[in-house]
Order: sequence, then structure tokens, then C-alpha cells
Amino acid sequence: MSSKISPSHAMQERIEKGLHQALAIAESKTAPQNLQRALHHAVFPGGARIRPQLCLAVAAACGDDDPDLSIAAAGAIELLHCASLVHDDLPCFDNSMVRRGQPSVHAAFGERIAVLAGDALIVLAFQYMASCSMRSPLRLAPLLKTIAASVGAPHGIVSGQAWECESKVQLSQYQKEKTGSLFEAATAAGAQAAGADADTWKPLGEWLGEAYQVADDIRDVLADQATMGKPQGQDLTHDRPSSARDLGLVGAVQHFDELVYKAIHSIPSCKGEKMLRALVAKEAERLIPEAWFINTSRPLHHHATV
Amino acid sequence: MSSKISPSHAMQERIEKGLHQALAIAESKTAPQNLQRALHHAVFPGGARIRPQLCLAVAAACGDDDPDLSIAAAGAIELLHCASLVHDDLPCFDNSMVRRGQPSVHAAFGERIAVLAGDALIVLAFQYMASCSMRSPLRLAPLLKTIAASVGAPHGIVSGQAWECESKVQLSQYQKEKTGSLFEAATAAGAQAAGADADTWKPLGEWLGEAYQVADDIRDVLADQATMGKPQGQDLTHDRPSSARDLGLVGAVQHFDELVYKAIHSIPSCKGEKMLRALVAKEAERLIPEAWFINTSRPLHHHATV
Repeated sequence: MSSKISPSHAMQERIEKGLHQALAIAESKTAPQNLQRALHHAVFPGGARIRPQLCLAVAAACGDDDPDLSIAAAGAIELLHCASLVHDDLPCFDNSMVRRGQPSVHAAFGERIAVLAGDALIVLAFQYMASCSMRSPLRLAPLLKTIAASVGAPHGIVSGQAWECESKVQLSQYQKEKTGSLFEAATAAGAQAAGADADTWKPLGEWLGEAYQVADDIRDVLADQATMGKPQGQDLTHDRPSSARDLGLVGAVQHFDELVYKAIHSIPSCKGEKMLRALVAKEAERLIPEAWFINTSRPLHHHATV
Repeated sequence: MSSKISPSHAMQERIEKGLHQALAIAESKTAPQNLQRALHHAVFPGGARIRPQLCLAVAAACGDDDPDLSIAAAGAIELLHCASLVHDDLPCFDNSMVRRGQPSVHAAFGERIAVLAGDALIVLAFQYMASCSMRSPLRLAPLLKTIAASVGAPHGIVSGQAWECESKVQLSQYQKEKTGSLFEAATAAGAQAAGADADTWKPLGEWLGEAYQVADDIRDVLADQATMGKPQGQDLTHDRPSSARDLGLVGAVQHFDELVYKAIHSIPSCKGEKMLRALVAKEAERLIPEAWFINTSRPLHHHATV
């Protein structure tokens, strides 16, 4: 281990290692190989891995006295996120052929394998947590409940997605469930994995999750503009709720900045406070770079809040 | 409670009550109502509920000292079974418009809601177990691992289903994974929920699960014959592995009888032995009634083995 490795880099390595450890549970040479390859394809290479980072950062801030459990919680959350992407990309939803710069699972392996891969990843998330709970078995049930609630019905990711099949949609509830819930679970689970109180940490996940969804809406509208409206942004194509459509671009950016501000200021006073503020600020800059709006009247400069 | 209620009837009522209790976790008036209705539709009314019956019967044979946990295990197994049916019925798999005499979930609510309902039921299964583990928290992780392994990759239901996307299939592995795995989990989980050893009870589930798959193949071929080959049985239509096709009808019925015989004789000596033998015999008769083959050379009369 080199001393040059940054804490953030070490955390990323820990996350990738954890995800490989989880996938190993589902691997076998005597299993159907298309599904095997699809599971790997759905998880590697990853995106920003922001949810597991957030989970581990909160666990670290709470003492992280059971690193096996915190990495399992972080890994489970990322597996569930990957599962939701695989199913979101299906022909009946977004029909996306590309994900993270490579063919989506259904584009590469077909629709049937994509349905099964998503299912297998959901199961694996819970299996991975169970297999890493030996040192702190009493933490398993609360951890599992937190994470399950954030992805299931009535108010987790699947419910968020199911709003797209309703005629009347509450934008804030849709965003909270589809994106916010797993961010909230990431911070709460990080605390629970370390034996700490979950409630103190929920607001951070909540605000950040909402910011993330708003950023998605903004990026979608900007992508539209960049391509002169062809092809249209996914939100318009699929007639999905969008804050950028409801608030306008400047309004949405202002809303994003406010949410990041609230996220940063919700971080409880603790030894990991500085690291967490830096993580949130870095993520905010990654999502909506300052440079994009340097000449607009962006009202709240989120960097100033760090 | 009337004394006229049979043990089997009481068990059925307990299972339905448990499933309602599980569904209540996922219910909310402020959630998207199509998904809410689809979840209910996927679980009620049920089929034979043979897997949860088997789980509870084994738990009873092992003392059932934590009925909250055994019903949660039984309910979770049934929820996972329902989830697999919802996804199996999708257009990209069997494209079945009917399930248990009513419209399948995708026929009634659309493909998107069917994908989401299956996902939500998988999550709910684990959530339900976590929420019922308070009295015996140390049993949660092993129980969860048993049940997760039976539905996930590399050798659970999703892998069984994924064999349909491979060019070369091992019939016995396909059957074992697609159907046998959840039967094996039902008996193992029944034992684990009662704090007993799982391994003793796995053979019962294993043989019964294989018998169940063979019975399905037989019924499929008989349905073909009854309708003069129009519409063709699902197995032929979808070119799926089928023991009735490989062994012929008489060979498959003989194989079924042998498997039921093995199942019954694998039951360990215990106070619930008689009840379990009766349950297996009753289920065998339900699957492949004696009357169907009364004039054939059915070699092993499974009733004689009870």
C-alpha cells in the first residue's frame, strides 16, 4: 500500500473489491454463462459509485467498527442501483441501448437475460449482506429493512418508477422515490452498519438524492439543447416528470444549488464532517460543473458553502 | 376457532394471513396504485401454496418454536415464487395472458408494471423476513442465505430460467434450479426457522421439487393431447427442456412415481413424520391423479408408499 493513495482512491478500491466479492457469490462455471456474463457486465465497469461512497463515508464518520458489514451495505446498495438500471433500460421502459458507454445489458444479452440479471442482482444484494453479518448479527435486520424499503414498495425505487404508469404524478414524490430513497438508504445504512443512529444521517441522503435527480433533469435538457433537440431528451421522449421542464433551466439550477447547500449543512458535527463536505462538494461539481453556468445568474454558488 | 378445522386448513389460513401481513408492508394509499393493485393480483388468490405448506410442515416437525419466523420464511418463499411467475409470464418469456385462471399481471397491468411488481415482490420477501426476526435474530442470516441461494445465481430459479437462453442445456440441472431449488429451500428454511439442522431436510425438498417439474412436463404433454396439439404445450412452443419429451409419457410418469417415493422415504423420523408423508402423498395425487393412468402400466403406485 502506497502512502500516495488518497482516502477517496482507497475507498473506490474498497468498493470495487467489495463488488467483486459479492459477484463471486453468484459465480459458477457450471451456471448458464450468458447470465453470468450479464451480471458482470451490469456491475463493471461502474459509474461514479456515489451511493456506496456515501455509505462508506458515513460509516467512517460513525467509527466503522465492522468494515465487513459496511462494505456489504455499500455493495448491496450499488448492486440494487445496478439492478434498477438494467431494468430501466429494458425495451418496455427507456429502451436504452447504451449504458455507461457500453451496450446496455438487454442490448448485449437480450431482453430475457436483462430481466433475469436484474432479478439476480436484487437477490444478491440481500445475500451479500447476510453473508457479511457474522460479527454484528443484530445489525442485519435493521440494515436490511432500511435498504429494502428504499428499493421496494410502497416508497422505494420500484414505486418511483411505477409513477411513470400513473396518469397523475407528484413530481417531488416521484423524484424522492426514484432517486432520493437509495441515497437516503446509503447514509442511513452507513450509520447502521457502524452501530450508529440512522435518523441523524437521513437528511444528508435525502437532500443529495433530490439534488441528483434535479441534476439529471438539467443534464437531460442541456443534452437536448446541444443536439438541437434531435434526439430529444429522454424525459421529453418518455413524457416523464422533470423539474427542468417545470422550473425552467435557471430555476432548476438554482434548485440544485439549494439542495446541495441543504445537504452539506445537514451533516452532523463529527470527526468525518470535513471529508463528507468535500465528498458532497466534489460530487456536486461532477454533476453540474460551475463552468457550465459561469456567465449565467447562478444565484447560489455551491462551492462557497463548503 | 372451531375444532372442526383440519390441520391442513389451519395451515392454509396461516399462510394466507402471513401473505396479507407481508403485503401490508408494501401497501400505501399514497403509492402508485397500479403497482399496488398488481402486487395484490400477483399473490391473491394463490395456487396450491405447496412451498409454504412444506416449509411450515417441516418447521412444525422441528418444534416451530418461533412461529413468526417460520411464517415469514414460508411467506417469503411464496412471494419469491409469485415473483418468478410474474416475470415468467412476461412477453419476452412465456407471454402468458392467463395465470391461475385470471389475467396474468402483464395482461392486466402492462409489461412495465409486471417487471416492477416482480422486483417489488423479491424485495418484499427479504424485508418480510427481516421484520419477523426479532425473537431469533441469529437465525436471520442463515435463513436468508438459504432462500436467496434458491432464487438467485448461480444455481437458483433465475439461473434455471437462464438455461432457456443457452444453446446446450442439462435437463436435470435446469429442472433442479428452476423448480427444485425453491422446494429444497422450503424444507431447509422450515428447519432453520425452528432452529434445526437444514441439511437433514434438503433431500425431501429436492425429490419433491424434481417430481413437481416432471409433473409439469407430463401435464403439458397431456394438455397437448387433449387439445389435439392446438395450441401446442408451452414446452414445445418454447422449445424448452422437458422430461416428458425425453422419456416419453409412460417413462415420465414412472420417473414421477419414483421421485415421490424417494421424497416420502427421505422424511427423517420425527413427530411430524406422518403428517408430512400425508402432505406429500396428497400433493402427488393432486399433481398426477391415479385416475389418469388407471389403465396404463403405471409401475410404482405412489399411494402404496405412504
